[in-house]
Amino acid sequence: MSGLRFAVIGLGLIGGSLARALRSAGAVSSVSAFDTDLCQRRLALELGIVDDAPDSAAAAVAQAELVVLAVPVLHTAQALRSCLPGLKAGAVVTDVGSTKQSVLTDVAAVCGSLPPWFVAGHPIAGTEKSGVAHALADLFHNRRVILTPHAAQDAAALQRVSAMWVATGARVVHMDPAQHDAVFAATSHLPHLLAYSFVDMLARLDAQDEIFPNAGGGFRDFTRIASSSPEMWHDIVRANAGPVSRLLEQQIGELREVLAMMREGRWDEVRTLFERARSARERHLAQIE
Amino acid sequence: MSGLRFAVIGLGLIGGSLARALRSAGAVSSVSAFDTDLCQRRLALELGIVDDAPDSAAAAVAQAELVVLAVPVLHTAQALRSCLPGLKAGAVVTDVGSTKQSVLTDVAAVCGSLPPWFVAGHPIAGTEKSGVAHALADLFHNRRVILTPHAAQDAAALQRVSAMWVATGARVVHMDPAQHDAVFAATSHLPHLLAYSFVDMLARLDAQDEIFPNAGGGFRDFTRIASSSPEMWHDIVRANAGPVSRLLEQQIGELREVLAMMREGRWDEVRTLFERARSARERHLAQIE
Repeated sequence: MSGLRFAVIGLGLIGGSLARALRSAGAVSSVSAFDTDLCQRRLALELGIVDDAPDSAAAAVAQAELVVLAVPVLHTAQALRSCLPGLKAGAVVTDVGSTKQSVLTDVAAVCGSLPPWFVAGHPIAGTEKSGVAHALADLFHNRRVILTPHAAQDAAALQRVSAMWVATGARVVHMDPAQHDAVFAATSHLPHLLAYSFVDMLARLDAQDEIFPNAGGGFRDFTRIASSSPEMWHDIVRANAGPVSRLLEQQIGELREVLAMMREGRWDEVRTLFERARSARERHLAQIE
Repeated sequence: MSGLRFAVIGLGLIGGSLARALRSAGAVSSVSAFDTDLCQRRLALELGIVDDAPDSAAAAVAQAELVVLAVPVLHTAQALRSCLPGLKAGAVVTDVGSTKQSVLTDVAAVCGSLPPWFVAGHPIAGTEKSGVAHALADLFHNRRVILTPHAAQDAAALQRVSAMWVATGARVVHMDPAQHDAVFAATSHLPHLLAYSFVDMLARLDAQDEIFPNAGGGFRDFTRIASSSPEMWHDIVRANAGPVSRLLEQQIGELREVLAMMREGRWDEVRTLFERARSARERHLAQIE
């Protein structure tokens, strides 16, 4: 795919890292970008991550054969709408959102129906850091990227997006959009919500000034994702509210059961639960780490 | 404190790391150890972590001026009882348990009342790994150690235990036992319980074979503590059941409120909660990391 002109809408951690990765792989001939935040555009130019950062999405995509929407998921429709006036015939557009059914619905709403040139994607990569300043050329190296092809999908468009991700060092897999959303509600969306809720609870305790200085490594890792972008995660949880709220309800039920075990002195059951969790995690560890 | 003869009862991650740290600092003249598991004793000898590993706790402590009980907290009484027949006059005994009220109560029960030579301690260090094979000489470097002195405490005993921890590179602070247990219920015991419960819930979903391969870095960190020793954490949660169950109930209440926000479409409140959590974590980050 060397020689492709590339544009990214949204200069956050993912958009910035993708631009860096494609340039360092020599996979694109030029990178143009737009972000509604002027400071992110300037910073991306100063850091040499992009060649060009005009003041509209339509201008940024005008020459591009491959366009990536890298915005919080509920901004996808607006980002695509703002690209349309500038989009070249034959250009392929993809996204990086953590929810796939909502993105496909939103794209279909903007275009009337799902266009063959739109490919829905989700790289399983990121850090709790936000913004183009934290962009990393190797963020996608050895990571999974999920593509969720739709019925109207053009095969060449799908291939162009696959090749882009392979150039960053990622492995591409295909999945059904509904299955994707159910799986990531469990592995990603619910844990973020739990971590935010846990930190928020502690922050509202009277003893919080005693609590945080006494936090160890377990606390640091458990709560790391609570430092993620609130706007991005609000969008994700909202866009995938059905699967996330069903799992949250199930988690609340589990925790009520643990509380009952503790209050009724059913300690063998507590230990068995801990053992079951540990062995499940250890059994799957090679896939996780 | 160079020249002290040191004994450790319990050759797990903490006991093994402490032996390694004190030897590598040249802070002790000899290390003797006991563990009920013969394999851990042999391994500690083979790894050169201990000089001697006799087949009883009483024999292990017979020459020691400083004895550390490094066993799961509910095994403290039994470990101390098994040391008593061998303990030298003037020897100081301390522990490393994550709960301090239960340890003081158990020690008082074994001895009739709290002895001046017993010092209750808790190093804020560890990994999810268990066993002497994972012992690290620098595990306590730059970490906090909490000591919770009691009314009958001998000042020289307290000083001997402080000096031991300082030799490992740790910083020693004092705290009231009840305050300790309340703080660590929040920063450590509840997060472990939440992580175990979350992984256990996922492991019982029908789709678990789809779920774990799609876990990313956020999942890995959020669930890391669910790989910790179930026996050790059973003991901790049981020994500190009051504070942990009160916080768990509060956490369940918070999650029910989040679920209500989602179901009633109160998305601004969800976003505000995420923002509040993120800024609390960021505000305290220098203390956490």
